[in-house]
Amino acid sequence: MGTESHAAKWEQFKQYVKKMKSYEEAIGLIYWDMRTGAPKKGIAARSEVVGDLSGELFKLSVSEEMREFIDYFSKPEHQEQLSFIDKRIVNECKREYDRSKKIPPERYQEYVVLTAQAESAWEDAKEQSDFDSFQPYLEKIVEFNQEFIELWGYEGHKYNTLLDMYEPGMTVEKLDQVFGALREQVVPLLAAIQASGAKPDTGFLKQTFDQEKQKKFSLFILEQMGYDFDAGRLDETVHPFATGLNPGDVRITTRYLKDDVNSALFGTIHEGGHALYEQNISPELLGTPLCTGTSMGIHESQSRFWENMIGRSRPFWSRYYAELQANYPGQFDGVSAESFYLATNEVKPSLIRIEADELTYNLHIMIRYEIEKALFDGSVKVADLLRVWNEKYREYLGIEPANNGEGVLQDVHWSGGAFGYFPSYALGNMYAAQIARTLDRELGGLDALVAKGDLHPIKAWLADKIYRHGKSLTPSEIILEVTGEELNPDYLVDYLREKYSDIYKL
Amino acid sequence: MGTESHAAKWEQFKQYVKKMKSYEEAIGLIYWDMRTGAPKKGIAARSEVVGDLSGELFKLSVSEEMREFIDYFSKPEHQEQLSFIDKRIVNECKREYDRSKKIPPERYQEYVVLTAQAESAWEDAKEQSDFDSFQPYLEKIVEFNQEFIELWGYEGHKYNTLLDMYEPGMTVEKLDQVFGALREQVVPLLAAIQASGAKPDTGFLKQTFDQEKQKKFSLFILEQMGYDFDAGRLDETVHPFATGLNPGDVRITTRYLKDDVNSALFGTIHEGGHALYEQNISPELLGTPLCTGTSMGIHESQSRFWENMIGRSRPFWSRYYAELQANYPGQFDGVSAESFYLATNEVKPSLIRIEADELTYNLHIMIRYEIEKALFDGSVKVADLLRVWNEKYREYLGIEPANNGEGVLQDVHWSGGAFGYFPSYALGNMYAAQIARTLDRELGGLDALVAKGDLHPIKAWLADKIYRHGKSLTPSEIILEVTGEELNPDYLVDYLREKYSDIYKL
Repeated sequence: MGTESHAAKWEQFKQYVKKMKSYEEAIGLIYWDMRTGAPKKGIAARSEVVGDLSGELFKLSVSEEMREFIDYFSKPEHQEQLSFIDKRIVNECKREYDRSKKIPPERYQEYVVLTAQAESAWEDAKEQSDFDSFQPYLEKIVEFNQEFIELWGYEGHKYNTLLDMYEPGMTVEKLDQVFGALREQVVPLLAAIQASGAKPDTGFLKQTFDQEKQKKFSLFILEQMGYDFDAGRLDETVHPFATGLNPGDVRITTRYLKDDVNSALFGTIHEGGHALYEQNISPELLGTPLCTGTSMGIHESQSRFWENMIGRSRPFWSRYYAELQANYPGQFDGVSAESFYLATNEVKPSLIRIEADELTYNLHIMIRYEIEKALFDGSVKVADLLRVWNEKYREYLGIEPANNGEGVLQDVHWSGGAFGYFPSYALGNMYAAQIARTLDRELGGLDALVAKGDLHPIKAWLADKIYRHGKSLTPSEIILEVTGEELNPDYLVDYLREKYSDIYKL
Repeated sequence: MGTESHAAKWEQFKQYVKKMKSYEEAIGLIYWDMRTGAPKKGIAARSEVVGDLSGELFKLSVSEEMREFIDYFSKPEHQEQLSFIDKRIVNECKREYDRSKKIPPERYQEYVVLTAQAESAWEDAKEQSDFDSFQPYLEKIVEFNQEFIELWGYEGHKYNTLLDMYEPGMTVEKLDQVFGALREQVVPLLAAIQASGAKPDTGFLKQTFDQEKQKKFSLFILEQMGYDFDAGRLDETVHPFATGLNPGDVRITTRYLKDDVNSALFGTIHEGGHALYEQNISPELLGTPLCTGTSMGIHESQSRFWENMIGRSRPFWSRYYAELQANYPGQFDGVSAESFYLATNEVKPSLIRIEADELTYNLHIMIRYEIEKALFDGSVKVADLLRVWNEKYREYLGIEPANNGEGVLQDVHWSGGAFGYFPSYALGNMYAAQIARTLDRELGGLDALVAKGDLHPIKAWLADKIYRHGKSLTPSEIILEVTGEELNPDYLVDYLREKYSDIYKL
């Protein structure tokens, strides 16, 4: 087949994948709208719209036409006519096609219905701290996932197939190694902190903070980070999130708590980090499946880099504390920037992951990782979960939930079948520390830039090294290209040890 | 074919049309979002999404599958198995199919591109009062429409085919009759008003009004009208509009002018009238092409009924003026409810349709109607438009535009090819007056209810007689069923004569 018809076929394929992105974007906007203020009486009909559009999108991803495109562009003689990016577009479509095509549609449909019911069952179960009522749903969800793993195939541990959905290329073998190294260091560090007897004063964080002022400060910090308000907006929701509809429309939400100045502040910076990623994807990837973050782990590395390594750093507050004080006149009189910094970094083992400090957060994730892995190699049953959960919290964090609602039922993920997702959060911390080290070296000192409020060069460096590539590079390619080595947990360990040894004077 | 397979085929058809409505709803939400606050850098990509979804919707409306459904359900032996509503669903799909199928896709595509360019050209032309630069676009648009009319076919006047798009069944023959009757009465009434020398004091309308207070009062009036805030929301845009995404999600927007209390107030009531219609469509029509207002004219009858016959009535202000005064403390001291009522109904010939009073508004519409009719029977050319426009304004309203921007270029409609739309506005006024007369009789006095602020029974009556039917009844069926007679302009004439004779003491 000649070059001309090859080009024509590629153009058809580009139009085809662009249409798929259009469905995704429309669905994304509908979800954003549902969460930010769609009238409640319209939700049932709107869900039908989502169902119809998702159904069409799924059909496009597994159609005969898609199979033909993939077959054609996978042939060596056609591959060699493709650019690097174009090959990756084909790969991504093939990945999606293979994954979707291997599941019988009727089984998938059953699974979708099950998880929809399970989420609702989970909500009730959590509220009533009643694991027993949720257990049968969870058992079925695990069974479905075991069946899907057999259909998809796996190498090594069965859980690898689930990990790969969220972090392409990630394996149990790798995670055992990096989480092992992390645990070895974090557990004694936590013990040392607890033994130190030091406890920062945090009382001044718990005043009443005017919501409009919180919003104003959130907007100010976003602007400092280089968030582009012509390509996004900030709204309020119960559960904060970021959504990249296209690089020119990346919206974030936050939550203003009356009695907690930090919730909206760090929530906004966190979602702002996700948003910087999506806003800075190269325009050449627009309308392709590569126009998104490369993985959950790399995405989370950016939210957590901005939230913790920038937002919870000493130079950040040496630069911005005066603005915070001015934003809340009188409310921080007599509180020094250093005191605010220390309070904002209090280490305190807790039962709730989403409120955890930077150090113990990783332990929360390891607990879930170990449980999920065990569920899929069969060494733990769903019926054992309650016991195992509580044992692990006692072991890692020295505390135990008073009830299942704040224990095994606290996270929504399992009700949706999102096994393999949790490790992304801790991977994000490790990636972030590793990337920060390189950034620090290449830009001649991260702290110095932050202390001057010079955040835009940081954003520009990250955009160039990571953001612009979207999904055209894999997570491991990115980490290798940017830092010169594979994922290495030592950077996070060093970062945590240095930061908390200083704070707790160890 | 047996009953069972008939039922199965109907179910397939229902799913098919539901999917079409899903596309419409998604597109509607995207437009709402674009107008209310989508970040500007995302608009180009979002337009591609609209293009892709609209393209799919169009394909569904003219597909081979649709043709088979229509053929099957149009057969007498299958028709008789359908309910009244189901027959109307088939009719509506057939109407859409026939209309779309008759235009060669490549000609339609050219036309879409042309109108997109024309709207942009119109914006510039209007700003610079430069009709010449817009003329070539308008000529092409008229030519396309003439071509389409030949393809669609027509009975009687060619313009009938365009009228039928917005007001099914409406004809030049009918409009000439009703507009003739209206003109015969309105023109001398206007002359009498102008000769009366009376001029209500309107100065107090032009103060500075706090935007938050305007919003609060708008929300209050909507709530009084029975607008359901669990099935809608109020936002702010430059050009106010209402959009019914589904009956549980009918959103309206308004515009707050700092120096004009009436713009947001009556704009909100107007859009609220549209919204009451869409919110009260019967749930049994959900997911069908009948789940919308039956025509532009009937829709406009509801916005204008609520805006003018309720909102600009004396009993309305006898009931709500105290609330208005309380909403703007001190700003209406010494202004009586009667003075406010009179000011709000000032008759004053103007060049701008959208700011016209209730009486002269109809003359603005007749001018456009006469011009459009003449464009399509060939008695007027686009090149003559400037002259004809100014002549007609002098004839009907006694004034002439100083420039084309406030003259022939004032409305966006023609740039989008929306010929046949304008008459809906005046039809709305006529329908509204006719319906109001029946309502008045059946509810034992409209004014008495309004004077008590008892607006919910009015809404309930309209919902029962009109709103719930959606598009399952035609405009002429509705007007006949509700009022017992066909469209009759005398009701509007009587209403106007009575109202303005009183106000201007004729």
